[in-house]
Amino acid sequence: MLKTIEYVDGVVRMIDQTKLPLESVFVDCRTIEEVGSAIKTMVIRGAPAIGVAAAMGVSLGAAAIEAETFDDFFSQLEAQCAELGQSRPTAVNLAWGIERMTRVAQENKSLPLAELKTLLRDESIKICAEDIEINKAMGRHGQALIEKGQTVLTHCNAGALATAGYGTALGVIRAAMEAGKNIKVMANETRPFLQGARLTVWELKEDNIPVTLITDNMSGFFMKKKAIDCVVVGADRIAANGDVANKIGTYMVATMAEKHKIPFYVAAPISTLDMSLSSGDLIPIEERSSEEVTSVQNQRIAPEGTNAAHPAFDVTPNDMITAIITEKGVARPPFAESLKRLAEQK
Amino acid sequence: MLKTIEYVDGVVRMIDQTKLPLESVFVDCRTIEEVGSAIKTMVIRGAPAIGVAAAMGVSLGAAAIEAETFDDFFSQLEAQCAELGQSRPTAVNLAWGIERMTRVAQENKSLPLAELKTLLRDESIKICAEDIEINKAMGRHGQALIEKGQTVLTHCNAGALATAGYGTALGVIRAAMEAGKNIKVMANETRPFLQGARLTVWELKEDNIPVTLITDNMSGFFMKKKAIDCVVVGADRIAANGDVANKIGTYMVATMAEKHKIPFYVAAPISTLDMSLSSGDLIPIEERSSEEVTSVQNQRIAPEGTNAAHPAFDVTPNDMITAIITEKGVARPPFAESLKRLAEQK
Repeated sequence: MLKTIEYVDGVVRMIDQTKLPLESVFVDCRTIEEVGSAIKTMVIRGAPAIGVAAAMGVSLGAAAIEAETFDDFFSQLEAQCAELGQSRPTAVNLAWGIERMTRVAQENKSLPLAELKTLLRDESIKICAEDIEINKAMGRHGQALIEKGQTVLTHCNAGALATAGYGTALGVIRAAMEAGKNIKVMANETRPFLQGARLTVWELKEDNIPVTLITDNMSGFFMKKKAIDCVVVGADRIAANGDVANKIGTYMVATMAEKHKIPFYVAAPISTLDMSLSSGDLIPIEERSSEEVTSVQNQRIAPEGTNAAHPAFDVTPNDMITAIITEKGVARPPFAESLKRLAEQK
Repeated sequence: MLKTIEYVDGVVRMIDQTKLPLESVFVDCRTIEEVGSAIKTMVIRGAPAIGVAAAMGVSLGAAAIEAETFDDFFSQLEAQCAELGQSRPTAVNLAWGIERMTRVAQENKSLPLAELKTLLRDESIKICAEDIEINKAMGRHGQALIEKGQTVLTHCNAGALATAGYGTALGVIRAAMEAGKNIKVMANETRPFLQGARLTVWELKEDNIPVTLITDNMSGFFMKKKAIDCVVVGADRIAANGDVANKIGTYMVATMAEKHKIPFYVAAPISTLDMSLSSGDLIPIEERSSEEVTSVQNQRIAPEGTNAAHPAFDVTPNDMITAIITEKGVARPPFAESLKRLAEQK
C-alpha cells in the first residue's frame, strides 16, 4: 500500500489524491504554505490525514523560522498556523493538529530553538504513527458491530488514504475482514470529488476486499432490496451532542438507513470531537467551487455558464446515528454523555 | 428549441442525447432496427419520447415490409415489433406506442397496403403532436400545485427532451413560469447518465428558467435548510396502485421529501399507467452496463476491473407520493381509485 503522507529528508511527501487511481503521483511539500495549498486543493484529504498534514506542515514552518528568542519564534509560528488553519474549515482535525504542535512548542520553550525544531519534527512524525495505532484500535472496537457475511455500505473515503494508514470506516471494515468475517462492501462513488469511486474502490481492491461501486443515488434501491446490512462512515467533526459533519451525502445515506432500520455507524478518532460546539448546527460547512460540480476530472459535463451549488459537507443529527466508534471504545446514545465520558478517559 | 424527434422525408431524426450539451448532433434512423438501437443506446430516452420513437419506428418497419396480403404484412410487422419491444424494459410507453400502431393497422386491414403504410406514418406523426398537447394539459393541471416564488427540485430529465416537446415534470415547471409564478429549479445531476446536468440544465437555460445544478447527494442538505419547497419528477411506469418506477435515485429523493414533509409530485401521461400491474414490485427494472458507472462520458473514474452495479430505475411506493399529475387531471391518494377513474375518463 502506498503511504498517504510521510516525512522524508526534510520534505513532507503525499500521494496526490486528485490523480488516483489513474495516476500515482507524489507531491513534495517543502514549506508550510505548500502543505496548506495541498490541503486546500485536496491533494491530501480526509479529516485525520489533514490533522497529520497540518502537524507536519507546522514542523516545516517551524524549521524555516529565523529567530533569536522563543517569543519571536512563537509569534512567527502562530502567524503561519493561523493561515494554515484557514485552508479548510470543516474538519476539526486541522485545528487539532496545529494546536497539539503549538502546545508542544510552548511546553518546551526553554529548549534551544534548534532542538525545539527537531522536537517538533519528531512530534509530527509521532502524530502520524499514532494515527495508525488509533485506527487499529478503532477497527478492533468497531468490527465487533459487524456480523459474518454482511454487506457494509460506506460513503466517501474514510480509509488509509484519509488517514496516516488503515483508515477509520475502512479500518473497521479491514478489522472485520481480519477477524474472518468475510464481509462485502458497497461504495458510494461520492460526487463531486469521487472519493468513493477513485480512492475507496482502489484501496479495497488492493486489499482484496470485495467491493461493488454504486452511484450516490442507488443506496436506497439496495437498502429496499435488503442488500445492505449496515452503514459505516467517517466524520470531519463531531459536536458534543453527537451530531456528525461528514462528506456531503452522508445525511441522505443516514436517512435511508433510518427508513430501512439499518444500523448507521460513524468511525472517528477522539480528535474529531469538538466539545466546544453544543450541536452540529454550529459546524462551519465549507462551500467549494461550483466547477467541481459542473465538471468531472476537468471534463465539463454541464452547459457553459451553469450555476451550481457545492456544499462539501452535511450534518447528520445524532438521533439518526446508532453508534460512534472511537479508539477508546464505542459511544451509544445519549451521545452527550457517552462522548464526554470517552473524551475524558485516559 | 431543438426538436427531440421528428419525421423528415421518410427518416426519423433525433437529437443525440448522449452528446448534449457539448455537441448538437442529429441521428437519422431509416429502419425500425436503427430506432431500436437508438432507444437502447439512449440517443433518445425519457418514457414519452420512447413511446413516440417506438411509433415512428413501427411506421418505418411497416414501410419496408414486402407483402401481398394483410396477414403476411401483419405477421412480419409483429415480428419486428417484438424485437423493438425488447430495446428497454422499464418504460411502459414503449409497449404503449407499439400497441397503438399495431391496433391501427388491424383496424384498417381492409385498406390497400400502400395506403395502410401511409396511414401508419401519419399515425406516428399524430402521436408525436398529441404528446406535446398532452404535456401542455399536464402543465396546466400541475402548475396549480406550485406557489409563487417556490423552489422546485427535479431529478433526471422529464423535459422537452424526454418527450416530443414541453416535457412532463419540466412541462409543469414551464407552465408555472408562464403563469408568472417566478419559480426556481434545483436539478439533480442524475448519475450515471447525467440527464440532469446535461439535459435539464440545458433545457431550462434555453428557456431562461433559473436553475441550480446539484449532485444527487445534496438534495437532503438543501431540504434540511428549507431551500426546496416541492419535488416534481416524471415516471417510466406507474402501477395500478400508484407505485412509480422512475430514474434511479427517485426513491431517495422521495424519502428525503417525506422526512422533510415536502410535497412530492409525479407528472406523467396516462400512457405511463400500467393498469395490468397491481404493484410496483412487478415492474421490470433494467440493469444497464456497469461501465456507465465506472466512467463519465467515456472517461474512466474508477480503477480498472472495478465491479459496479447499475440498476437504471427504482420504484417509489405510492404512500410517499403527494399527487400524480396527468393530462386528464391530478390524482390524489388512494391512487388505486383515482388513477382508475382518470384512466377510464374520456
